[in-house]
Amino acid sequence: MGKNIVVIGGVALGPKAACRCLRLAPDTNLTLVDENTFISYGGCGLPYYVSGEIQALDALRSTNYQVVRDPAFFAKMKGFRVMTQTRATAIDRAKQCVHVKHLDSNTEEDLPYDSLVLATGAKPRIPPFEGKDLRNIYTLTKLEDADQIRKNCESGAVTDAVIIGGGFIGLEAAVALADMWGIHTTVLEMDNTLMRAVLPETLGKVAEADMVKHGVTVLTSEKTLKFTGENGAVTAVVTDKRTIKAQLVIIATGFIPNGQLAKDAGLPTLGNGAIIVDAFMRTEDPHIYAGGDCASIVNIITGKHGYLPLGSMSNRQGRVIGTNIAGGSQTFPGFVGTWAVKLFDMSIAATGLTIDRARMEGFDAISVTVEQLDRAHFYPEKDMMALEIVVDKKTRRVLGMQGASANGQGLKARIDAVAALLQCAKPTVADVSNLEVGYAPPFAAAMDVVNVAGNVAENVLDGHFTAINGIDFADLWEKRSDNTIFFIDARPKGAGDALAQKHPEWHPIPLEQIEAELPTIPKDRDIALICNTGLRSYESLLILQRHGYTRIKNAMGGMQALKQMGLDPKA
Amino acid sequence: MGKNIVVIGGVALGPKAACRCLRLAPDTNLTLVDENTFISYGGCGLPYYVSGEIQALDALRSTNYQVVRDPAFFAKMKGFRVMTQTRATAIDRAKQCVHVKHLDSNTEEDLPYDSLVLATGAKPRIPPFEGKDLRNIYTLTKLEDADQIRKNCESGAVTDAVIIGGGFIGLEAAVALADMWGIHTTVLEMDNTLMRAVLPETLGKVAEADMVKHGVTVLTSEKTLKFTGENGAVTAVVTDKRTIKAQLVIIATGFIPNGQLAKDAGLPTLGNGAIIVDAFMRTEDPHIYAGGDCASIVNIITGKHGYLPLGSMSNRQGRVIGTNIAGGSQTFPGFVGTWAVKLFDMSIAATGLTIDRARMEGFDAISVTVEQLDRAHFYPEKDMMALEIVVDKKTRRVLGMQGASANGQGLKARIDAVAALLQCAKPTVADVSNLEVGYAPPFAAAMDVVNVAGNVAENVLDGHFTAINGIDFADLWEKRSDNTIFFIDARPKGAGDALAQKHPEWHPIPLEQIEAELPTIPKDRDIALICNTGLRSYESLLILQRHGYTRIKNAMGGMQALKQMGLDPKA
Repeated sequence: MGKNIVVIGGVALGPKAACRCLRLAPDTNLTLVDENTFISYGGCGLPYYVSGEIQALDALRSTNYQVVRDPAFFAKMKGFRVMTQTRATAIDRAKQCVHVKHLDSNTEEDLPYDSLVLATGAKPRIPPFEGKDLRNIYTLTKLEDADQIRKNCESGAVTDAVIIGGGFIGLEAAVALADMWGIHTTVLEMDNTLMRAVLPETLGKVAEADMVKHGVTVLTSEKTLKFTGENGAVTAVVTDKRTIKAQLVIIATGFIPNGQLAKDAGLPTLGNGAIIVDAFMRTEDPHIYAGGDCASIVNIITGKHGYLPLGSMSNRQGRVIGTNIAGGSQTFPGFVGTWAVKLFDMSIAATGLTIDRARMEGFDAISVTVEQLDRAHFYPEKDMMALEIVVDKKTRRVLGMQGASANGQGLKARIDAVAALLQCAKPTVADVSNLEVGYAPPFAAAMDVVNVAGNVAENVLDGHFTAINGIDFADLWEKRSDNTIFFIDARPKGAGDALAQKHPEWHPIPLEQIEAELPTIPKDRDIALICNTGLRSYESLLILQRHGYTRIKNAMGGMQALKQMGLDPKA
Repeated sequence: MGKNIVVIGGVALGPKAACRCLRLAPDTNLTLVDENTFISYGGCGLPYYVSGEIQALDALRSTNYQVVRDPAFFAKMKGFRVMTQTRATAIDRAKQCVHVKHLDSNTEEDLPYDSLVLATGAKPRIPPFEGKDLRNIYTLTKLEDADQIRKNCESGAVTDAVIIGGGFIGLEAAVALADMWGIHTTVLEMDNTLMRAVLPETLGKVAEADMVKHGVTVLTSEKTLKFTGENGAVTAVVTDKRTIKAQLVIIATGFIPNGQLAKDAGLPTLGNGAIIVDAFMRTEDPHIYAGGDCASIVNIITGKHGYLPLGSMSNRQGRVIGTNIAGGSQTFPGFVGTWAVKLFDMSIAATGLTIDRARMEGFDAISVTVEQLDRAHFYPEKDMMALEIVVDKKTRRVLGMQGASANGQGLKARIDAVAALLQCAKPTVADVSNLEVGYAPPFAAAMDVVNVAGNVAENVLDGHFTAINGIDFADLWEKRSDNTIFFIDARPKGAGDALAQKHPEWHPIPLEQIEAELPTIPKDRDIALICNTGLRSYESLLILQRHGYTRIKNAMGGMQALKQMGLDPKA
């Protein structure tokens, strides 16, 4: 008889660890307990069930080869016992056993273990809003939630919905409601832009513009105060600025790791409750492992313990834990923070630290944005791609990259390549400039946008020019009566004329004419250059520099970036 | 006055190096010479001009911001002199000058240099076929070629074309002719599969099946002998097996680096003529740099000098050379060999070494193939993706990955991430298993196909099971009368019935029924398992192993892989 292993939690990491263990050590006596009825489901698919793109909930509980993963499946196919409706209530580390309560029969028992795996996941963080217990207020973390939300939508009784929280899940939910059900949807976000924790302001505004373009109302810098209702069902959300009608509310304000069981057993946790584990995914107690949404692993970039609750992380960590509880000795390298989300037209993806996060972590960092075609400019199909690269000034170390494009798969290619660099080295900006990525005109430009991001960062670090982002440019333009900046539009002849007619401060000087127009360009004032994407204006900047101009700011991403953020000057 | 710099060659690397140098050291006296009329064009775009997807040749000579890059452009916008129709005939290293001949005026002069850049590119390799000088036989390396080929197509006089060589350019040319012009096109390849130098047989067959499906005739293991013609124009290609009608022939049998000038000056070159440079892109002579298609840099994986003629490499190397001739000190890390090509439905991409190349380089390597959905299986839009991973047995070091999918951008994402790993470390198979890539259902599976490739390779290396690829399986099936293999089809009930009716050796035993069917499965014979993609058969294998079966081979990629290669058993 093999070792006794107990796994607490049956959604993602738990079953993966159990399967891997049984695969390597088939005589293991393994028991998985979960307090819910449904286990082993793809929680990340819930927004797509709400939208109706996924027809049946069972699709989220099925294997790739269309078999539903229920307790009988795991018993028969994988060789371990699953007890659902079974809550682990305490861990006795001295006796090496878990105390569990069977919720259906109301009985209790002790499960002895040689190794214990904590896969308790996370629960949605729900702020103590007044009225939060009204009907039709949901989170979107369980199959049952998704089922209820979809039934509400199908009933036809929902015309207005409010999403509290502008992070991944909130935005995915908003897309599902607005796009597929035609519900007027409002996203409420306390911060000043969407996905602020993981995106720079610029790209948060790109996300916002995409939502707004497709009929979603986005309210940022606005606080939810309470919910009001009638007959026990929600009818409105009250914020610090207004009252919004809603027959459906989804709260998506983050997660709290389920670390209490571990904490009660004396195991160290992070401030947010996540269970701290080492590279072997082991807690301080060598018999107890933890991983997935309840655990804290090392952020490879900062070297500190952090938190990244993603189904993909859980699966990979589960395999490592499964190997180790079967007697192996595998390590998990930590995380860098790579993610992707598809909105309406735009996809957003990122890896590593944002500029704000980098500064919070103590780096003396800068970031630059580039906006370029994702494929060869002469290739018929192509999209714009915006990338922001974050670099430590002194060491030139790359700390992160964020991006947006209608070509989501292509964006993933750039972000994943940089993610790989971040995982195995402390890459410098030169490593990104020289990064060898697959090239052919249908896939990339010869000097690919990811390389250009490295090139521009190098030029800025070396003091060759001053880059400003679209928000900075829009701000300078907005405050043009308070500054003495000379604005030059370097786009081709004609493109800036309408703006110039309305605003005498706007000077359309196409790249081709800038040398001829030098006498009209003041040397004693700051100059802000803009074009369509930042390329023509950069060429103009080079010409101006050759003629002794020094006080020039180039608007990276140009009018494209401004338009994507909804900040372009209007004629 | 700054330094004198001479650049020989004006297509990709030359202009890039020159622009970068002038940008950093504007007072440089830089002269670029090229023996042709057209310079600075995107040679990789030529197949798309032939197809008509690119309307005008000028698009290939234009900047991102639509300005044609001619000598006047470089003089005015970039500050250096370009002399076209000017051939460099000798380098006098002692005197530090280049002897040039102006082809239009038939005059000669010496250009003195402080630094010299060799960007002489490569010329097409044309085997000495009889009749190779007939009209309408082309290569596809210059604007003039592409223009002529397209004119031939537009004339309507071409009904049959032959492409000699089944590498990238040959296949891109075949797609252009067959897809856009409806010309009956034959690809002739000496080797047994397409792109044999850079792809394993399995994926070469996937490429072939895609070509054949779209009406291209692919003839492998067939040698071109000569061309025959009438009135000086080609009318047929004669091979060692047949005569093929053709009014148009494109020879795409590789490149020869233009290293003669360097060799004549006593600089070391590789066997193929490529000029050997160090990490600073400098030849043995500290005053002479070389890069792009004429140069040999280090292959990071083998540590030996190698050759990768791609426009993207030229651009990045050009920037490094430009920095160095302007007084900087930047290095280029070498190459790992990353590329991508779009055929009809399928895209193919790869990085690092193939299994055959790895063995040639002395590695004791294995490779395994996986075939899986590229996105969450419950997400409505998704494609199959095949990946082959190449691993050194003893060190478990990953040496390369090749792949194929209809989702070309998504394939690029997996290949580029592994390419980044290969560039900055000696990654092990565990690094690929744990590789953190962007995840959300529209982009990836929670356990992404790239991670699965790592997982499977680990399992095979650890002896947990024996994997065979589709070619191996098809071969075993083909020779079933000579072997005693027991073939099991683990697909769902019904899927294998037609095959079994025709062939009694084919045993349809769905995964769900394998335990019940154990008495019918012999323990003393080798078993070959197959299903749709390799997943159900793998689960069946686990069950058989638990019941003491040891002699099992699992067909990776399953019937999907076989179908993609056109090798699936027929009922």
